[in-house]
Amino acid sequence: MFLKEMSKEQLTALKNELTAKYDEVKNQGLSLDMSRGKPGADQLDLTVDMLSVMTTAEDCKGENGFDCRNYGVLDGIPECKKLFADLLQVDVKNIIIGGSSSLNLMYDYLNQCMFMGVSGCEPWSKQGKVKFICNVPGYDRHFAITEYFGIEMISVEMTNEGPDVEKIKELVKDPMVKGMFCVPKYSNPNGVTYSDDVVKALASLKPAAKDFRVIWDNAYIIHELTDTPDVLMNIFDACKEFGTEDYFVEFTSTAKISFPGAGVSAIAASDNNIAEIKKRLNFQTISYDKLNQLRHVKYFKNLDGIKAHMDKHAAIIAPKFNLVLDMLEKEIAPLGIGEWVKAKGGYFISYNTIGCSAKRIGELCKGAGLVLTTVGATYPYGVDPEDKNIRIAPTFPSVEDLGKAMEVFCLCAKLAAVEALV
Amino acid sequence: MFLKEMSKEQLTALKNELTAKYDEVKNQGLSLDMSRGKPGADQLDLTVDMLSVMTTAEDCKGENGFDCRNYGVLDGIPECKKLFADLLQVDVKNIIIGGSSSLNLMYDYLNQCMFMGVSGCEPWSKQGKVKFICNVPGYDRHFAITEYFGIEMISVEMTNEGPDVEKIKELVKDPMVKGMFCVPKYSNPNGVTYSDDVVKALASLKPAAKDFRVIWDNAYIIHELTDTPDVLMNIFDACKEFGTEDYFVEFTSTAKISFPGAGVSAIAASDNNIAEIKKRLNFQTISYDKLNQLRHVKYFKNLDGIKAHMDKHAAIIAPKFNLVLDMLEKEIAPLGIGEWVKAKGGYFISYNTIGCSAKRIGELCKGAGLVLTTVGATYPYGVDPEDKNIRIAPTFPSVEDLGKAMEVFCLCAKLAAVEALV
Repeated sequence: MFLKEMSKEQLTALKNELTAKYDEVKNQGLSLDMSRGKPGADQLDLTVDMLSVMTTAEDCKGENGFDCRNYGVLDGIPECKKLFADLLQVDVKNIIIGGSSSLNLMYDYLNQCMFMGVSGCEPWSKQGKVKFICNVPGYDRHFAITEYFGIEMISVEMTNEGPDVEKIKELVKDPMVKGMFCVPKYSNPNGVTYSDDVVKALASLKPAAKDFRVIWDNAYIIHELTDTPDVLMNIFDACKEFGTEDYFVEFTSTAKISFPGAGVSAIAASDNNIAEIKKRLNFQTISYDKLNQLRHVKYFKNLDGIKAHMDKHAAIIAPKFNLVLDMLEKEIAPLGIGEWVKAKGGYFISYNTIGCSAKRIGELCKGAGLVLTTVGATYPYGVDPEDKNIRIAPTFPSVEDLGKAMEVFCLCAKLAAVEALV
Repeated sequence: MFLKEMSKEQLTALKNELTAKYDEVKNQGLSLDMSRGKPGADQLDLTVDMLSVMTTAEDCKGENGFDCRNYGVLDGIPECKKLFADLLQVDVKNIIIGGSSSLNLMYDYLNQCMFMGVSGCEPWSKQGKVKFICNVPGYDRHFAITEYFGIEMISVEMTNEGPDVEKIKELVKDPMVKGMFCVPKYSNPNGVTYSDDVVKALASLKPAAKDFRVIWDNAYIIHELTDTPDVLMNIFDACKEFGTEDYFVEFTSTAKISFPGAGVSAIAASDNNIAEIKKRLNFQTISYDKLNQLRHVKYFKNLDGIKAHMDKHAAIIAPKFNLVLDMLEKEIAPLGIGEWVKAKGGYFISYNTIGCSAKRIGELCKGAGLVLTTVGATYPYGVDPEDKNIRIAPTFPSVEDLGKAMEVFCLCAKLAAVEALV
């Protein structure tokens, strides 16, 4: 029976029952964490052999004979560019390889837009109050960068096909709307992959700002959970028809393919943007870590190697996602107090409350020893206007801990929902 | 006999002789390079075993049990902070570990000063035309960053004890003079280590700008060529008396200890500056490459380990420096056409012409197949006002190639000097 159909007596009885259970759980002194999109240790074990693929001086030579132990090759070694070009389905000349953090590349790119300007335009910071479109719910670290630069964030709700493009079309008529963040595949947190229609609509945008930039964060490009993956249309292919390639800068990394914080990141962009980024890069560093680039190429060999490797990740984490989904289906669905998308990849399950405060669920979980992503963090300024969204990150805990964590979560979700009705 | 004491006939005869030699060398089709401060392959071989110190999951655990394969520990793993704290002679709490490039940390720090502001002050970019003191001759990549940010560069000549502090004391009375670059030990390129008096004078500066910042690039902190190394006074110790710790931010890396472009970089700074940098770092990245941090600690173990390792570097490169110095002593000194400092460490020998154009020497060398650091690059905007300085980088070529390169260099230096007099 849906909670909202229950009588006052039924609700009171349920509340008492749930409160008793909650007190019991609280006394267990649990310490559980479903807060961050971190791989588990068993996933990291998958790539541990990568640490042994280069042990001699000879191993450190790139395919063109370049000694990767020394300075040089600012934009990445050719074989690593090739690997990312294949992954991102772009030409090798449209790839720049970075350090271990794609987030850092994004920060850096926005920094460039803000203070030095792109496409020959004045720096955004000199043009007035810059605004950015933030698809919500979204990734807290994207919003944090935007906020740090003092950019005004305008939320656009995600649908089951991607962001609301009609709203975006209207917003980009404002020349101070300078861009937006997108996680187009298995979006953080709601797991949605942008449909072809949405990708085409974005590619055909006619922003008033000539220096409009979409940060196309393809973080989960190959992070599948099923044998029938979503297929994301290649943004640069979509742009060709409209000549809008310069509006999109794509980022990805092997953070959740090899090692988080010790992988390899990359940018894919138009010829113009690549030239502009390279010019700046020349002032920023001498070269990124080419040994790590080569290590990754030697280990994965090619795109098929990465694909086969990602199957191993899926074998470890798909059961975790299924556990979460099963628990929600069993505990939450019958009561009609929450909804979620069954993502086919990525790192998160996005839970939306129906009829109760997400913050309250977060509080209750915390009280019971379960840490969730800070409620509200999936919205700009940390404020979820409807106080409904919770990001569940199932990968890091063990299956056993995850089971316990989800028991606590469901208990708290139910208790919060009953409280709201009583 | 000094060239300037020669008769016209003697000079003409010498010119003919040198020109004939030059034409001969030109026909050899040489391809030699003394342009960049890169270690040779034999130096890189010294650390190749570092690539094997971590091969298992267990190896990837830090001393506090943290799994360095995963996200987290934004400011560096404790054992790596300790290693750099010992190297830089500061407290562990005053260290932040970065990625593989200290140049990138410097760029990033100046970016912060320019556009976000430090010490609670307005960003430099909002205060008007920012000026920076550049000690000359100096490092082209420092000047490149300053120029990129549109900062006006004011040259201050280096003496044999460091920069001209009297001139600096005057300059910092201007509130728009916001800082300077220093390579305090084995300065790039002239090899001078700042004397205690100079360090104290810098520490006691009373700049008009409250957000004055010295980029203390201690790139050659432990890069000795002799058994009697220069001892640089610790800048933060010197600052204590004057309460000027916030004016100095120190940078270093293992680029020329382990692998250029694949080492570990670090910042040492005051409590205030560390707090400010960490706050910003939080928006920039999730964490730097901790596997590489741990790899370095496991390999070097401690400061003594680094010291012992640097002896091996010295054994390889000191003979190269001696070769250059011997050739200069033999070929150039008797003619009185050039001067240089016999550096006890670092990566360069700085050559100053007497009575002839450095650019002309560069041209002649290029014509004979020898690449030098672009003449002028050791000065802001690439313009050496006296056209006298040439940076010689002896480390990368083999001893054999270096010998040939120095023969070409001396020949060209002599020819240019004779041309200037004839």
